[in-house]
Amino acid sequence: MSEVLIVGEEICQQIVGRAEAFAAVEAVFAAMDRGEARNFPVVREALGHARALYGFKSGFDQAGHVLGVKSGGYWPGNMDRGLTNHQSTVFLFDPDTGQLSALVGGNYLTAVRTAASSAVSIAHLARRDARVLGMVGAGHQSTFQLRAAAEQRAFEKVVAWNPHPEMLPRLAVVAEELGLEFEAVSPQELGAQADVIISITSAFEPLLMSGWIRPGTHLACMGTDTRGKMEVDSALLARATVFTDEVAQSVSIGEAQHAVSQGLIGAEDITPIGAVINGGHPGRGSEADITLFDGTGVGLQDLAVASVAAKLAVERGLGARASL
Amino acid sequence: MSEVLIVGEEICQQIVGRAEAFAAVEAVFAAMDRGEARNFPVVREALGHARALYGFKSGFDQAGHVLGVKSGGYWPGNMDRGLTNHQSTVFLFDPDTGQLSALVGGNYLTAVRTAASSAVSIAHLARRDARVLGMVGAGHQSTFQLRAAAEQRAFEKVVAWNPHPEMLPRLAVVAEELGLEFEAVSPQELGAQADVIISITSAFEPLLMSGWIRPGTHLACMGTDTRGKMEVDSALLARATVFTDEVAQSVSIGEAQHAVSQGLIGAEDITPIGAVINGGHPGRGSEADITLFDGTGVGLQDLAVASVAAKLAVERGLGARASL
Repeated sequence: MSEVLIVGEEICQQIVGRAEAFAAVEAVFAAMDRGEARNFPVVREALGHARALYGFKSGFDQAGHVLGVKSGGYWPGNMDRGLTNHQSTVFLFDPDTGQLSALVGGNYLTAVRTAASSAVSIAHLARRDARVLGMVGAGHQSTFQLRAAAEQRAFEKVVAWNPHPEMLPRLAVVAEELGLEFEAVSPQELGAQADVIISITSAFEPLLMSGWIRPGTHLACMGTDTRGKMEVDSALLARATVFTDEVAQSVSIGEAQHAVSQGLIGAEDITPIGAVINGGHPGRGSEADITLFDGTGVGLQDLAVASVAAKLAVERGLGARASL
Repeated sequence: MSEVLIVGEEICQQIVGRAEAFAAVEAVFAAMDRGEARNFPVVREALGHARALYGFKSGFDQAGHVLGVKSGGYWPGNMDRGLTNHQSTVFLFDPDTGQLSALVGGNYLTAVRTAASSAVSIAHLARRDARVLGMVGAGHQSTFQLRAAAEQRAFEKVVAWNPHPEMLPRLAVVAEELGLEFEAVSPQELGAQADVIISITSAFEPLLMSGWIRPGTHLACMGTDTRGKMEVDSALLARATVFTDEVAQSVSIGEAQHAVSQGLIGAEDITPIGAVINGGHPGRGSEADITLFDGTGVGLQDLAVASVAAKLAVERGLGARASL
């Protein structure tokens, strides 16, 4: 008989903040680069039922002593039932015995770990003097992205564009709360003003063209996680210094897939962000460089933040316990 | 917030019997053959820690409305800690919403579903007049196999062989309890006496040679679930009519892998047991045929018995509940 800790969505929201998520994601990216943590093959299946996509992302972080899996997927009919379309649960196992140690709600954590990923890229790659943050996309995850990014530089203004402009007030509210000027702009104007750009959409066509992006810009492309998806002009990847969470995913399901399949860049042109964190790669070369982070989303990020949630829950006496 | 049912190992042992497991496994094999249930790709990784093998088997049974994953693996150091080396947990999700619906202990259920699998093969493929049951292997799972097999025919005697003969008394005790004569024999003698043979070992060399097996015998080879493992002479597969739970696994990680790689048989020579259950294949052709069931073990079996455990727990007011 083993005891399992259960940490629900509400407790996760209460105890895992941006700082904790940033530290956990940065640490696991570094461990991946040192070869001390690796992601296992991703399972992703169309169910042929409820139009659902379902699957697993799993991995083992030997440095952090974290083993587990995030399971779940996308159920497009959930909204009509008052549920989140994306459903995730994280399961953590004791790496020494294989026993299930914790069950952690994954919906809030998925948003937080994705925001932490772009924030880590901004911390390590954006110009120090960045003042204007550009947001492409205004869905559920965009406010998480905006809040996490805003803490990385002394931003003064947010410029935003979304294919559905009626959703932009959601970002305007957060920008105001953060004391930042807000302007809804065209994508061209966004490129002209922004020092840092985050794209967080589910687009299948480029939304930003290379010619619109100024030298010195840092981009975090966070939306592309599937074959066929695309947020920016592939010429921009040839022009930029490209970084990613995991090269294998970047070239196959990430933003770089198109530039790679067109022969504009190769896998060897893409640097794991962990190499920058560990000091093995200098990151931004000059103030005029364009840096682009291809955030594909790896299972180890989910496990890292879930592990933080489990540890903090134990420390604070939160969560339920069940016997298996 | 969603509610999760938690069904621990002890409750599983209490409520999931051989009859329930047999019915669930038979039904899901039939659904697989009708194309109404399918297994997703298996993830199986050597951790490089604690000499552990870790992974996932998952699938979706549309007919049974069961979606989920069994995760866990093999931790060879567990025995020294007083724990089972094989550690499994099953997670079930609502196929309509993706929400986690149940967490079910998987250690006992793995033994039961594996025994149900060979029992289903005996029920559909062994001669009606089978009287002697041969057991090759005497590990933890062998007693489950023996009990489930014994219910399928009017057996009078058990003959058994194990590479480590000191483990055989474990089977003798169960045979006596079932009112069956018991004899420890050589593998040659086992082939000469047995009408039905179950092999449940972790061998990497053939333990039974084709020449030792009489016409009319049914074999259920249950131990081979990994590349390189092997329980019987590959010539026996060429001689027998071969059945399996899943052809894709049979030819790659099952007992048939060797006969296939040696060109003795092809995937087209292997019949899913579901086709026999559904009546699309006649099964045993004549009394003199040798039938061989290659039981590789699929995720849908685990999900099927775990789903039964969850349903019975709800009906009987057992198990705990937690909020996520």
